[in-house]
Amino acid sequence: MKYDPIYYGDYLQLDTLLSSQKLKSLEHGKEAHDETLFIITHQAYELWFKQIIHELDSVHKIFNTSNVNPTHLGVVNHRLQRIVQIQRVLNEQIAIIETMTPLDFMEFRDYLVPASGFQSIQFREIELKLGLRQRFRLGIDQKFFNSRLKEEHKEYMIKLEEESTFLELFDAWLSRMPFGQTENFDFWQEYQNSVNKMLEQDRKIIMDNKTLHDKEKEFELKNLEATRNSFAILFDEEKYNALMETGEMRISRKAKLSAIFINLFKDEPIFQIPNRMVESLLDIDEMFSTWRYRHAIMVHRILGTKIGTGGSSGHDYLKRSTENNRVFLDFFNLATFLIPKNFIPALPSEIKKEMGFHFE
Amino acid sequence: MKYDPIYYGDYLQLDTLLSSQKLKSLEHGKEAHDETLFIITHQAYELWFKQIIHELDSVHKIFNTSNVNPTHLGVVNHRLQRIVQIQRVLNEQIAIIETMTPLDFMEFRDYLVPASGFQSIQFREIELKLGLRQRFRLGIDQKFFNSRLKEEHKEYMIKLEEESTFLELFDAWLSRMPFGQTENFDFWQEYQNSVNKMLEQDRKIIMDNKTLHDKEKEFELKNLEATRNSFAILFDEEKYNALMETGEMRISRKAKLSAIFINLFKDEPIFQIPNRMVESLLDIDEMFSTWRYRHAIMVHRILGTKIGTGGSSGHDYLKRSTENNRVFLDFFNLATFLIPKNFIPALPSEIKKEMGFHFE
Amino acid sequence: MKYDPIYYGDYLQLDTLLSSQKLKSLEHGKEAHDETLFIITHQAYELWFKQIIHELDSVHKIFNTSNVNPTHLGVVNHRLQRIVQIQRVLNEQIAIIETMTPLDFMEFRDYLVPASGFQSIQFREIELKLGLRQRFRLGIDQKFFNSRLKEEHKEYMIKLEEESTFLELFDAWLSRMPFGQTENFDFWQEYQNSVNKMLEQDRKIIMDNKTLHDKEKEFELKNLEATRNSFAILFDEEKYNALMETGEMRISRKAKLSAIFINLFKDEPIFQIPNRMVESLLDIDEMFSTWRYRHAIMVHRILGTKIGTGGSSGHDYLKRSTENNRVFLDFFNLATFLIPKNFIPALPSEIKKEMGFHFE
Amino acid sequence: MKYDPIYYGDYLQLDTLLSSQKLKSLEHGKEAHDETLFIITHQAYELWFKQIIHELDSVHKIFNTSNVNPTHLGVVNHRLQRIVQIQRVLNEQIAIIETMTPLDFMEFRDYLVPASGFQSIQFREIELKLGLRQRFRLGIDQKFFNSRLKEEHKEYMIKLEEESTFLELFDAWLSRMPFGQTENFDFWQEYQNSVNKMLEQDRKIIMDNKTLHDKEKEFELKNLEATRNSFAILFDEEKYNALMETGEMRISRKAKLSAIFINLFKDEPIFQIPNRMVESLLDIDEMFSTWRYRHAIMVHRILGTKIGTGGSSGHDYLKRSTENNRVFLDFFNLATFLIPKNFIPALPSEIKKEMGFHFE
Repeated sequence: MKYDPIYYGDYLQLDTLLSSQKLKSLEHGKEAHDETLFIITHQAYELWFKQIIHELDSVHKIFNTSNVNPTHLGVVNHRLQRIVQIQRVLNEQIAIIETMTPLDFMEFRDYLVPASGFQSIQFREIELKLGLRQRFRLGIDQKFFNSRLKEEHKEYMIKLEEESTFLELFDAWLSRMPFGQTENFDFWQEYQNSVNKMLEQDRKIIMDNKTLHDKEKEFELKNLEATRNSFAILFDEEKYNALMETGEMRISRKAKLSAIFINLFKDEPIFQIPNRMVESLLDIDEMFSTWRYRHAIMVHRILGTKIGTGGSSGHDYLKRSTENNRVFLDFFNLATFLIPKNFIPALPSEIKKEMGFHFE
Repeated sequence: MKYDPIYYGDYLQLDTLLSSQKLKSLEHGKEAHDETLFIITHQAYELWFKQIIHELDSVHKIFNTSNVNPTHLGVVNHRLQRIVQIQRVLNEQIAIIETMTPLDFMEFRDYLVPASGFQSIQFREIELKLGLRQRFRLGIDQKFFNSRLKEEHKEYMIKLEEESTFLELFDAWLSRMPFGQTENFDFWQEYQNSVNKMLEQDRKIIMDNKTLHDKEKEFELKNLEATRNSFAILFDEEKYNALMETGEMRISRKAKLSAIFINLFKDEPIFQIPNRMVESLLDIDEMFSTWRYRHAIMVHRILGTKIGTGGSSGHDYLKRSTENNRVFLDFFNLATFLIPKNFIPALPSEIKKEMGFHFE
Repeated sequence: MKYDPIYYGDYLQLDTLLSSQKLKSLEHGKEAHDETLFIITHQAYELWFKQIIHELDSVHKIFNTSNVNPTHLGVVNHRLQRIVQIQRVLNEQIAIIETMTPLDFMEFRDYLVPASGFQSIQFREIELKLGLRQRFRLGIDQKFFNSRLKEEHKEYMIKLEEESTFLELFDAWLSRMPFGQTENFDFWQEYQNSVNKMLEQDRKIIMDNKTLHDKEKEFELKNLEATRNSFAILFDEEKYNALMETGEMRISRKAKLSAIFINLFKDEPIFQIPNRMVESLLDIDEMFSTWRYRHAIMVHRILGTKIGTGGSSGHDYLKRSTENNRVFLDFFNLATFLIPKNFIPALPSEIKKEMGFHFE
Repeated sequence: MKYDPIYYGDYLQLDTLLSSQKLKSLEHGKEAHDETLFIITHQAYELWFKQIIHELDSVHKIFNTSNVNPTHLGVVNHRLQRIVQIQRVLNEQIAIIETMTPLDFMEFRDYLVPASGFQSIQFREIELKLGLRQRFRLGIDQKFFNSRLKEEHKEYMIKLEEESTFLELFDAWLSRMPFGQTENFDFWQEYQNSVNKMLEQDRKIIMDNKTLHDKEKEFELKNLEATRNSFAILFDEEKYNALMETGEMRISRKAKLSAIFINLFKDEPIFQIPNRMVESLLDIDEMFSTWRYRHAIMVHRILGTKIGTGGSSGHDYLKRSTENNRVFLDFFNLATFLIPKNFIPALPSEIKKEMGFHFE
């Protein structure tokens, strides 16, 4: 034994941990059986939130440079996937809290007013560190949340807003990616040509289709125009940036082009891990979004439609934030801009070589 | 061996089953690797849908009488819980289909136009048999869905509308429940008294609270009025029935009162299984609702925001139907009408006795 | 607001909770990134263990009487099912710890010697409270475990051994169940007759089967004898009790007969909840058993075959305890004693009536 | 619409699929409600088995060359992970079949004799294609399985044995990996030096530890010798190959060294994906192993200890095969051979460069 012998319970500080459940119902004279469940479930959430923050901070540090080391990308993806696995557990935990019935909750609910899950600083910290800046939140969410925090926590949240988010660092990293344009080759020019050819071909098919009624034809052509318009915005810096201002787009045009490029050429050795990283971000967003949705249903189940202290029923608010608080929608929308393999412009061999290993 | 020897593969008709994956991509000249996944996932869904219908039909049969046999209730709950377990698998299957990337899907997507998951008769059948009648669906959903069915399938769906749904049979069963009123005891009158006392007490607390600003006080009182109003509707047959017309309420007032009664006295032997049955319905609704939500995200991930053949982007529609197509919201809303244990009127001993066993 | 306003973080004691992760690697000069994960995962386990103990203690209290109140059975089953849902989360947590690679673990493993999961008092407490008394454990498990505990923990475990286990209380409750024998009706006599008839019929089928080779026939007859022998033990108090001594049987003969009876007549109102309770015990055993198995694989994955401080490789020990430490095997074995519906003796109507409700 | 319009139900061949459930109980006169569940669950399994085989065949094709294209590795890992996700569903399906009680199964069980899950050709095919050759199986498993197959299926299995397994192709690929030895650098010589240093240091610590009793010291030294012996075998071609003969080792020494190398240098760009591939194989093995274990418990639960037609009780056999049929144990055992980071020999810069990208 190289070091002082360690005892399991001491190492984990179990004496502290297992005596940190102080029941309000007991304080008020009569233990409510399910208050223990209520406390422990929330504590388990907070422990896992701490772990997620630990992982986010570590990948933030790796990306917080203008020259990200490629030997770190495997680890980054590994940690993002770890977050996804933790989220699986967070989602499964909802089914535990749902074993508490409305009447069981009523036994101690009044003692807890006005405490609220809104006051979980760590969860807000996770959302923010991923990329959900204050300005992207629902109005009610911003106002209501802040008004209920302790002064020190308000200040902490304000300080956090001063730091870069993972989404911003990832945006910057994607934006620095070369390959799209070299001296002799302009990939995006060729891509636009392909898109136009594809759209033109689609138009012809619609026009020549004799089985379509006029109304259907009209409808199909309208769809086609919508698609054309999506591409037009992608290739028009000014229009794109205007949507950045409104928050409809959250990553820069350059980053989005890189993300599309990675997706199109995901088999190239240099993109295999970056492509997985983008998928990990989709996973994280999807898992939190599912968690918010199930959380809303759980609240509905236990509280019904009672109007909460926030002025709208809890589950109504939660449902709205389910969609609003998504962080990586830009990457979900990538699929909009992909084109069939046979339309993808071929890369010159000198560029392809750059994407491979020294060793062959 | 009592019967002709049976062979595993023959019994399961594997020759048929495993040759029922006909790839359109292959037909068009080039196999798309992921089309097999696409077909098999959907086939697995349809197999499980068949099983769910099998269970629903069996519980429908048990409840399709004015005199449900209490020895069957355990089995009914068992089968409802089996549906929930199948739904767990349905939800987990979404993560399989999500391993298909947008580009992979593009390799065969065009061959499938205009086939659509909307055309799953079995899924519609499940929704309907649970209780989602045509008139409760979104307009787009009704119109669009029907326009794309084969004539025989349209007729089948129309025929199914003529049968009672499980929700209706369950409503009737709940409505027949006695206990709320006997010669000498009117539970609901006492309940209303309790509710009034509770609300009055709440009002006093608000008025006497000197830490509240005027605005907060006003807000709290408004909340109180909203709660009072919910109860008022519950105890006003006319108002309640008006909400039945609009579809805001989906079970009768009598059934809702019984459901509240069961919830309040769920520990009485006679209600232990019925209470679990209501919980099973909540589970089923929650699982389908989560499935729809995750399904919407999956479509977003694979298709982006492309406008679909239905005139709105697929995932937009799916998200709207996620909430709209919930069947058992009345039971979620039960929590609204529960009151703390110390306010619940005591039952006379002769009624309590009725809820127990002969054997003591 | 009726009480002092409460703040989320204070209520959950987050300051304490979130500062209870003291890294040994940091103490030794260099933070190992994954030590945080290691600590938090174990802490999450211990929090949930506390919750499981909370539920077990409450059902223990309800059963710790010679006259269990039937109005409590629904709650007991609810809490057993809550344990099952917690176990689902425990199982899912294994996949989180598995994201730690062998090299990551090596960065801090040596600092932890000789701490070990064996020293989790709470987990031992759960196993014991369910029914796994010291004498049922593997020899190595008993000796090794105790030798590594602090004196106070040893004493605590010894004190716990003095209390009744849930299995013992459940055994007593089952044993008190009447119905098997009344003045005019001896169910078990009739059951034996049925079993004999069934076995005799099986024997005839084998003897008359001309497609069987001699060797196959001999084999089938041997199987038949084994089944006959299982029943013989069940109906021979002395033989059965001898197997109680060896630990092969863990519930009394009377309790086992009652459990069989419940299973055969599970549709009777009075047995619907008890039948679910037995199923809940199967679920709990199965979940812990799966947890132990996955735990063993996880240890193998992270440590390889290194011989541990216990004198056998960790995962070898864990695999052996996976099966040995199962608590409710008697209930798994129930299936052995069930007979086809058409062989089950009918109950006299006065007994059937006893199993129903007053209300009809 | 570019092609003939397609209808959802036709594309999926639902008419065929949903009429492929032929109940034996119905044939014998009385429908057993749960036979539908029994058939559909097994059919769902077989559909997913087909999908797994589809994925295995595709990765087999990619690796069936002496010059695997690095642009394919991302796809290979993607498909291996897809198999893992399918396995999650397979595991979750066990909980569905477990909703069938022993009595429910008895209603149709006898009609199925002697059909058995052993006769699932596809499952055997998966095990074999992964790497579980006939000679690695339990004796009973080999004999019993074959005796119960149709002639055509026996022949099919024999033919499959003639092809290479994925494990063999993966072994060959690993074995071809360079890096371990160049003109001026012999990594494995340096590694052995490091191992010896490490072991020597461990020995000193034990000898100098004055808190150890003689017996403990002796025990610790024995452990040390066992570890030393594991390494000795790894570095002794003859001894290692002898263990290949017995089946204790299943991948070649060269492949194992490469796998260790990949693990040690998993952050190098060229190893990031290969390292994930090894992890995917661990995942697959773990998932099947968990599936077998839960399957064994499920059989126990539904059948009890009845002696089956195989001469041992079904769940006993299943438990033994749970461990025996693991395919990738060599990769689980890798952890045995890893050493702390500070002991790992540094790579010369010209070798490190080979492991990076052209683009920097």
